[in-house]
Amino acid sequence: MVSKEQLNAALARQGLQSVAQANIRDIQTLSKALEQESGEPFIHLEMGVPGLKPSDIAFEAEVEALKGGCAAVYPPNAGIARLHEAASRFVKAFIDVDVAPAHICATTGSMQGTFSVMMTMHHANPAKDTVLFIDPGFNVQKTQAQIIGLKGEHFDVHHCRGQQLLDRMEDILRTGKVCLIVYSNPNNPSWICLSDEELQGIGALATRYDVVVLEDLAYFAMDFRKDLSRPYEAPFQPSVAKYTDNYVMAISGSKAFSYAGQRIGTLAISDRLYVREYAPLGAFGVKSWGDFLSGRVLYTMSSGTAHAPQHALAAMMEAAVEGRFDFVAEIREYGRRAKFMKDVLLRHGFYLVYDNDLGAPLADGFYFTTQYPGMTDIELTAELMRYGIAVFPLESMGSDEQGVRICTSFITDAQFPLFEQRISAFAADHR
Amino acid sequence: MVSKEQLNAALARQGLQSVAQANIRDIQTLSKALEQESGEPFIHLEMGVPGLKPSDIAFEAEVEALKGGCAAVYPPNAGIARLHEAASRFVKAFIDVDVAPAHICATTGSMQGTFSVMMTMHHANPAKDTVLFIDPGFNVQKTQAQIIGLKGEHFDVHHCRGQQLLDRMEDILRTGKVCLIVYSNPNNPSWICLSDEELQGIGALATRYDVVVLEDLAYFAMDFRKDLSRPYEAPFQPSVAKYTDNYVMAISGSKAFSYAGQRIGTLAISDRLYVREYAPLGAFGVKSWGDFLSGRVLYTMSSGTAHAPQHALAAMMEAAVEGRFDFVAEIREYGRRAKFMKDVLLRHGFYLVYDNDLGAPLADGFYFTTQYPGMTDIELTAELMRYGIAVFPLESMGSDEQGVRICTSFITDAQFPLFEQRISAFAADHR
Repeated sequence: MVSKEQLNAALARQGLQSVAQANIRDIQTLSKALEQESGEPFIHLEMGVPGLKPSDIAFEAEVEALKGGCAAVYPPNAGIARLHEAASRFVKAFIDVDVAPAHICATTGSMQGTFSVMMTMHHANPAKDTVLFIDPGFNVQKTQAQIIGLKGEHFDVHHCRGQQLLDRMEDILRTGKVCLIVYSNPNNPSWICLSDEELQGIGALATRYDVVVLEDLAYFAMDFRKDLSRPYEAPFQPSVAKYTDNYVMAISGSKAFSYAGQRIGTLAISDRLYVREYAPLGAFGVKSWGDFLSGRVLYTMSSGTAHAPQHALAAMMEAAVEGRFDFVAEIREYGRRAKFMKDVLLRHGFYLVYDNDLGAPLADGFYFTTQYPGMTDIELTAELMRYGIAVFPLESMGSDEQGVRICTSFITDAQFPLFEQRISAFAADHR
Repeated sequence: MVSKEQLNAALARQGLQSVAQANIRDIQTLSKALEQESGEPFIHLEMGVPGLKPSDIAFEAEVEALKGGCAAVYPPNAGIARLHEAASRFVKAFIDVDVAPAHICATTGSMQGTFSVMMTMHHANPAKDTVLFIDPGFNVQKTQAQIIGLKGEHFDVHHCRGQQLLDRMEDILRTGKVCLIVYSNPNNPSWICLSDEELQGIGALATRYDVVVLEDLAYFAMDFRKDLSRPYEAPFQPSVAKYTDNYVMAISGSKAFSYAGQRIGTLAISDRLYVREYAPLGAFGVKSWGDFLSGRVLYTMSSGTAHAPQHALAAMMEAAVEGRFDFVAEIREYGRRAKFMKDVLLRHGFYLVYDNDLGAPLADGFYFTTQYPGMTDIELTAELMRYGIAVFPLESMGSDEQGVRICTSFITDAQFPLFEQRISAFAADHR
């Protein structure tokens, strides 16, 4: 569909020497350019863009807020009281954890949330200059640390789960240089889910070594092996928040509520961490961790986030908490697509890279990882691009494995036959 | 209205020892707390919250964009093409400067714009570690530099205008440590407006010393002494962009379009600066200044800004450029309020701090500065708070002068008699 020459020329036009240099947005730009050039529609599996229509509840809340005049008035730095209240209730209903409304912050997507947490750690405790990433992970969070001036440590969770995971972490924490532990759960890209025992161990380590855990819950309630959809009823979304006071949960509107376009997320900050004082913050005229994050970091980064989308997220959370809106039912669609694509790939000689979760089968969800024998992940990414399929190589996600990430959000039922046909053609050419 | 004891108790509850420690949001919080406690409405002159209703054009554009499904889809890191095109035309129509649409970036308010420019300079040229602020200025921009890890230099423009201003700047630029010059024009808080001759000199210095100028046009077209409202007709909004290639203009939706609540602004980046390559940026896999700002800084800070408000600002700019929407007519209201308040204050023994603009009377606009004889600015801020009037002390804005900033945006016609009555009571008690 696309020749090697066309691919290289398109890379050069973006100022890239190879696919290895591309970040996720670069891959998207590249695939769109090739799509235009070849005149053939690509199957976009590279990026975690939610492919579902958001709830009307959100639309109605935005329109009502705009009619009420919110567009003219600065939102508070850390967000509106309505969203604080709704997110606090949401955390209680679906994680079974208590976070005071005053310790919720609205952010311009979880991207701003994680940036602001890293920036806060950078200033709160300058002696600890390292972020520990549990890999594979969202590589942009490493760029965040680099831009802020923090160092990064990381290890691949694939070959160490359970007690091994905790031992590996403790080896790194013993250096005394780590200020923050970052992971997503479910994991992007491998879709493994940390167990309650692992989270309990991580929490205990965070307390013992006085390190904050930033738990990225971008894929909230998307471990579809369990029904996490019922408010105030077990099972709940697992979280380290049950096991330490040193936590921040990043809860995004992007994936769980299909609201990525309005860039709205929340941080739920441990009540104890929020009020904890750090002497170095005195240089900024504040004392507590939370006041610094809200009054100095979020203030100077953007002076709060857009007003109307805060009402949208609050309205959806309120409806979810009150049992009027089953947000999990909507996103279960991603699991169905994952199952279909895995079946096609396995039938054509591909294998799953991260292929089990503590011995159990992986959940079908927003992402999974796959590879074709005898190729590097960069080679596979480039080759699949030639067959009109855009994916993202694991190399750039801190993985020790060779493979690519598949996101299930953007493929439509109508594209299912095309996917099978292209994978089949790829397999025939690479036997 | 409020006793000294009540004031001190309210300060203590916010963790502040005195008004001197308060930032602009702290002052607002304090005045709202005292308002609630005293049961008397305050006159809020402390914060630059636009007090006007935004145009229906914005509302309609947001609703249409939401109906079109923009809420689900990530916006590009640097914003949507429609806004790039609209802002490029807006810059041509009202400043008479050419900036390519590809060199416009959408930001979460100009606050994110200035933060991202400082962060970009921090990494583009680490040897130059200092930002030069022309004071008095928006003190939060100094906090931005501090959070990013840049040093600050500043001087007060009050006693040096014209050639003196340029001499003073050149003394500082000769050190070779300055990467960025920051000012707002019209100036917040003094409302002085740099002349074309001054801007020409600043541009020449920026070119000679290879320094970037960040021109904060938060109060776009608000020098009401001139009619800047006609697209593609002189007079234009003055800008340093006419005199150097080393510039970034921050054009905000907050004040000129009364759209602060939706946190939407734009950066218009010099075509030459955007593509200029800086070797240290190679550590992030990019080369050019603009690609770093867009693809690394804006990406990691928030992954773009909310989708629907981008359509709102674009629609207002399109209408302004096409002569369908006179945005200047709307905001001229601020000038009328300034004139009323200045008259009241001068009749009651107050004087204007920054009282002339290169010998000519200051424009009436969004801000002005005033003082009462025999007081420090902290004393005056605290005392006026007791009479139910919230203002902001100049001390925290890098001014060498004693005085307070008055913002004209939030007082209503209905409050005019109350303002006069309270100022009169204050004057009677402080004779």
